[in-house]
Amino acid sequence: MTSERVREILSWYGSDNPGTLTNIARLLNTGRLAGTGRLVILPVDQGFEHGPARSFAQNPAGYDPRYHFELALAAGCNAYAAPLGFLEAGAAEFAGQIPLILKLNNSDSLYGGSDPRSALTGSVDDALRLGCSAIGFTIYPASAERNEMYEQIRDLGREAKSKGLAVVVWSYPRGSGISKEGETAIDVVAYAAQIAAQLGAHIIKVKPPTAHIEQAAAKKVYEKERIPIATLAERVRHVVQCAFNGRRIVIFSGGEAKETSAIMDEVRGIRDGGGFGSIIGRNSFQRARKDALDFLGQVMDIYAGKTK
Amino acid sequence: MTSERVREILSWYGSDNPGTLTNIARLLNTGRLAGTGRLVILPVDQGFEHGPARSFAQNPAGYDPRYHFELALAAGCNAYAAPLGFLEAGAAEFAGQIPLILKLNNSDSLYGGSDPRSALTGSVDDALRLGCSAIGFTIYPASAERNEMYEQIRDLGREAKSKGLAVVVWSYPRGSGISKEGETAIDVVAYAAQIAAQLGAHIIKVKPPTAHIEQAAAKKVYEKERIPIATLAERVRHVVQCAFNGRRIVIFSGGEAKETSAIMDEVRGIRDGGGFGSIIGRNSFQRARKDALDFLGQVMDIYAGKTK
Amino acid sequence: MTSERVREILSWYGSDNPGTLTNIARLLNTGRLAGTGRLVILPVDQGFEHGPARSFAQNPAGYDPRYHFELALAAGCNAYAAPLGFLEAGAAEFAGQIPLILKLNNSDSLYGGSDPRSALTGSVDDALRLGCSAIGFTIYPASAERNEMYEQIRDLGREAKSKGLAVVVWSYPRGSGISKEGETAIDVVAYAAQIAAQLGAHIIKVKPPTAHIEQAAAKKVYEKERIPIATLAERVRHVVQCAFNGRRIVIFSGGEAKETSAIMDEVRGIRDGGGFGSIIGRNSFQRARKDALDFLGQVMDIYAGKTK
Amino acid sequence: MTSERVREILSWYGSDNPGTLTNIARLLNTGRLAGTGRLVILPVDQGFEHGPARSFAQNPAGYDPRYHFELALAAGCNAYAAPLGFLEAGAAEFAGQIPLILKLNNSDSLYGGSDPRSALTGSVDDALRLGCSAIGFTIYPASAERNEMYEQIRDLGREAKSKGLAVVVWSYPRGSGISKEGETAIDVVAYAAQIAAQLGAHIIKVKPPTAHIEQAAAKKVYEKERIPIATLAERVRHVVQCAFNGRRIVIFSGGEAKETSAIMDEVRGIRDGGGFGSIIGRNSFQRARKDALDFLGQVMDIYAGKTK
Amino acid sequence: MTSERVREILSWYGSDNPGTLTNIARLLNTGRLAGTGRLVILPVDQGFEHGPARSFAQNPAGYDPRYHFELALAAGCNAYAAPLGFLEAGAAEFAGQIPLILKLNNSDSLYGGSDPRSALTGSVDDALRLGCSAIGFTIYPASAERNEMYEQIRDLGREAKSKGLAVVVWSYPRGSGISKEGETAIDVVAYAAQIAAQLGAHIIKVKPPTAHIEQAAAKKVYEKERIPIATLAERVRHVVQCAFNGRRIVIFSGGEAKETSAIMDEVRGIRDGGGFGSIIGRNSFQRARKDALDFLGQVMDIYAGKTK
Repeated sequence: MTSERVREILSWYGSDNPGTLTNIARLLNTGRLAGTGRLVILPVDQGFEHGPARSFAQNPAGYDPRYHFELALAAGCNAYAAPLGFLEAGAAEFAGQIPLILKLNNSDSLYGGSDPRSALTGSVDDALRLGCSAIGFTIYPASAERNEMYEQIRDLGREAKSKGLAVVVWSYPRGSGISKEGETAIDVVAYAAQIAAQLGAHIIKVKPPTAHIEQAAAKKVYEKERIPIATLAERVRHVVQCAFNGRRIVIFSGGEAKETSAIMDEVRGIRDGGGFGSIIGRNSFQRARKDALDFLGQVMDIYAGKTK
Repeated sequence: MTSERVREILSWYGSDNPGTLTNIARLLNTGRLAGTGRLVILPVDQGFEHGPARSFAQNPAGYDPRYHFELALAAGCNAYAAPLGFLEAGAAEFAGQIPLILKLNNSDSLYGGSDPRSALTGSVDDALRLGCSAIGFTIYPASAERNEMYEQIRDLGREAKSKGLAVVVWSYPRGSGISKEGETAIDVVAYAAQIAAQLGAHIIKVKPPTAHIEQAAAKKVYEKERIPIATLAERVRHVVQCAFNGRRIVIFSGGEAKETSAIMDEVRGIRDGGGFGSIIGRNSFQRARKDALDFLGQVMDIYAGKTK
Repeated sequence: MTSERVREILSWYGSDNPGTLTNIARLLNTGRLAGTGRLVILPVDQGFEHGPARSFAQNPAGYDPRYHFELALAAGCNAYAAPLGFLEAGAAEFAGQIPLILKLNNSDSLYGGSDPRSALTGSVDDALRLGCSAIGFTIYPASAERNEMYEQIRDLGREAKSKGLAVVVWSYPRGSGISKEGETAIDVVAYAAQIAAQLGAHIIKVKPPTAHIEQAAAKKVYEKERIPIATLAERVRHVVQCAFNGRRIVIFSGGEAKETSAIMDEVRGIRDGGGFGSIIGRNSFQRARKDALDFLGQVMDIYAGKTK
Repeated sequence: MTSERVREILSWYGSDNPGTLTNIARLLNTGRLAGTGRLVILPVDQGFEHGPARSFAQNPAGYDPRYHFELALAAGCNAYAAPLGFLEAGAAEFAGQIPLILKLNNSDSLYGGSDPRSALTGSVDDALRLGCSAIGFTIYPASAERNEMYEQIRDLGREAKSKGLAVVVWSYPRGSGISKEGETAIDVVAYAAQIAAQLGAHIIKVKPPTAHIEQAAAKKVYEKERIPIATLAERVRHVVQCAFNGRRIVIFSGGEAKETSAIMDEVRGIRDGGGFGSIIGRNSFQRARKDALDFLGQVMDIYAGKTK
Repeated sequence: MTSERVREILSWYGSDNPGTLTNIARLLNTGRLAGTGRLVILPVDQGFEHGPARSFAQNPAGYDPRYHFELALAAGCNAYAAPLGFLEAGAAEFAGQIPLILKLNNSDSLYGGSDPRSALTGSVDDALRLGCSAIGFTIYPASAERNEMYEQIRDLGREAKSKGLAVVVWSYPRGSGISKEGETAIDVVAYAAQIAAQLGAHIIKVKPPTAHIEQAAAKKVYEKERIPIATLAERVRHVVQCAFNGRRIVIFSGGEAKETSAIMDEVRGIRDGGGFGSIIGRNSFQRARKDALDFLGQVMDIYAGKTK
């Protein structure tokens, strides 16, 4: 039976049809965190984004697309997110075992450029035929190409909602509009969360913000209103507030592989600030399976409140 | 029963179907100004346009999308206008309580550029499923991208009208075709109103014009024909004349937050010049709720003729 | 009953369906010149193209869109042409009283640029719902954007013809391919008429040509073949010949407001050269109503052969 | 009854439906060369491409679109090809008398530029409503815009074939990828024929090639394999071989108006090299009618083998 | 009856419909390598890509499109791949005799440019009407135009799969993102295989990789994880691993015509590394027919394990 917290969360999405609500509920009612309103999602798009060896050589089991379905399942994740090819290669075998998120756009690193835009690589109908619960889409606010991406998610989001899917937006400010440091600045991350929410995302993924403030006009307000941003928990709280006062699900990326203890500190900060969870790729699948399960178990314990 | 003034206004839109006339009537027959032919609309797109902290930190209740529905309702506004995400987050809860305007395009400030074009972020069908009475669309005459915007509103306007919605156009000259001062020059604002009217807008939003004249070819005519533009009321009268001799509804934006008395003077000027009302965002939702209600009450009293 | 001349003209359009022939006949059978095969059309797009004050301040009655319907009707014009907004504002009130031409693209002057392209601002279906007899479309041969315009009229023309409307093309060479003087050069205007005819226009509007020859390759031919271009009548005859040897209706624009006698001389030249008529905007609606009626009466008398 | 040669030619087009085969047969079974497998086609697009006076002043009868239908018919041509306007102006009057080819794209010379692309000016459905047997389309290999043209003919060709029309491709290398001399180089013309064939053309029009070799990589092969290219007949034979070993119809353009004897030499070269015929515009319609009939008669006699 | 190996391979494509599985099976069950899970495919797109003389002058029989169908058939290839024109010219005559792959995009060499994109030259419906088993599509990762190509194959791949066709992707890194040497670098080729797999390809064609490593970020990983890349077999094994751990069919191109013994060494390396086969154009059709059959027989013997 659906928990009170999940019912509360679903109540925020009053404009969505029962099909979409069902899929949001599936994401919230799966895995070890089922019913808590928290999520840990396994995303594996690095093969496309960074290349296969950089992604999988460290733990070669990851070259096999089935590995990640199984890892997400064994770890008790809420969902598994990947591009078209990776999902096609396992969706039948793992049908119905774990909610899937089809990432509809992706970018490779064989070509650079200062103002990124990901290529569309999948469609809403692909998501339906593969049994997915949601589409995933990346926007790069601050890129000269941002408007093209906003217009794509406008169309894809509307189509997904009308077909009963949930919409997950990766909102990563990047491009010639801001500095490198600005990509994780608190004002920029908060703004990125707001943009994704205004574009109609049900679930928003941002990076953990730093205390840096990028834009002068924002700096004045942060200082005048004394918005607390000293700790990660404070910053997460602010970002969540900026996503419709907490009425949209905001989750945080894990970023580069790093020390376990550093990650757990970050997860605690997210939890304490009212963040809804994590989406952790490289830190999961680049460890040996046993270590990854252990690691993800620790993360989930923190979100479940089983450990401090 | 519909007032004589509203019937008169509706008579100007003889090419529209009964569905669209019904929605224009809804806008005119709602709130404290119902039946007067005047409108005060609450727009909240600043979260997208300027960022969440700059928009809502001053009055943090505004982070919550429901706040603005409720504020517009309590204040007796004619309508509430916002982007997709903000409307999705309250349209069901407030269904049928106040006419809604879905802003179909928006621009964020993480990326600049001299010739703006807003991204499409919503659709006519979104407006329908959210129970809106109208679509809102921003054009930037004087931008190198103006033609793209004109062609978008051509398509969206036709679709909206065929589906019984009203069309509200924000006409804000901006871009490399004119100077910064020219954005509010009387000739430019009057021209902006004309363009919106020719593009088929039912309701036109412009900025209060200054006495500056931007274009040399226009200056000659203003001087030769001695068009009166010394006072705001005169300039408003001219702008309204330029919108089909007063046969299109023209309303004026509030602009940056400022002194209450200055705003009330501006509102009196708009009223005395035959303007149809105001669309006031930051000056409303950045005040504490009680102050905002008081403030909007004063504005409406002026338009209602209850105070000088 | 249709005159012999009108039947002759209709015979040139053997590829058109009866719906389109009906609308061409309507244009030819309306007003004081009905049945003569000559046309005087009132176009009012200057509010969009030049701005409202520059267009209407001289005769402020023109701010009101109904004024122009009424003026065209009272003067006995064959048709009234305007952009979407202006037609929407009067089409119901004047339904069935005078043939209407919806101008489907327009350009404003708040932004310049050396290679113009007008924005699409109306559609064929708009023309149908407003009861129009024809669509109007502007091309700018010699602009770097010319191909985009040719491809737009290709699509719009085909749609209009299939839906029983006539197609009127304003063919105004302009842009970086030619000099300013070249815009009205005899070779260029003749070429512009040919292009419009080849694109499938039923009615072609060009500017009265000067004796200047713009292109070197053309100059050789004009000189070798001794094409007579000394008088306006000769030049008009040549332009009409260049529009399928007189088997397409070619009308001439009035241009800037000027002395009445100069215009009448021009009209005589057009008539004597076998031109089919005039399309006169500013010289009509910028005069006081009584003067405009008088003025248009004189023009029509010349075309009707009632005065020399 | 269809001749053996025509049946042989039709056998090359095994992927086409009976509708398209019927139209190819119509082209081959019309006029003085009916049944021989050779074609002489009259194309008149110069009014659009070069301007009306440059095209028609020399023989003013050509200003009239009906002239060319009648000329093609009287001369016994296999078909008449022209842009939309010219065909619309005669298709009804000459219905069923001669196969028509609607040229779907055209370019005017009021604007230059180093990398040409023609504008789409007609559609497959226009060809059908005008009773045409084929569409005509120009590609400019070596232009930076070539891919856009290839993609247009991909779509138009598929549509035409599915609707039972034949596809004629004008393949004229031109643009910044090659030199002016290279436009008629043997390697380039042969390559142009191959590209058109690979794009699915039934009939390919190229220019008579010179002995110049443009591309270094090709030069090596021509020299190593000792491909004979000294005479026009040898070069034509090579070009025909490059169009699927002679299993596609390849015809040659006439080029600029020139001496009759020079043209007849060229025609003999084309015939002797196994070329399928000529498409001759200016050299036909710029002569007086009687001379043109005489001229075209000579050309056809050569192809028919009646004269050396 | 389908071999165990073929059944195993088909099991990797669990997201595909029976129509597509049937066509993959057709490719695997045809020719001398039927049932082995290995493939040798004859591709002939060089006429378009390099020009006809450079492609066919050495063995002029190849100018005739039927030659290649017959060659592929006689040699016992699994399939024949070519652009639209070449397939149209033989598909009826050879109907049902050998699986066909329609190459949907192609590039000619009359125009250069540093960032290539092939033009779309065929469609999925063309593939169906010609009786093909698969579509072929070329992507150029590392080109500035890569995203356009990814988005095209996204749409074409989805359409092909829904219509029961297989999808073959030529993945050739090329463009300003990498060096010339980098085009065949092991990290780049492996990445190219991953991208094609993620884009949903059933069969992936790459070039045989060298031991060069192009990208610094990749180099670190190859060295740290000591990925074996010294021999071609090792490199092939790595590339196959990078295509979903061997769960996608990866075949290798033959490249420029070269010594037979060098090719056979390459083929052995591909076979020993677990590659699925070769796609060999110029080395086949540029030899005399007898030599080509002999040559292809040797290649197939190696793959079949009949020779070392």
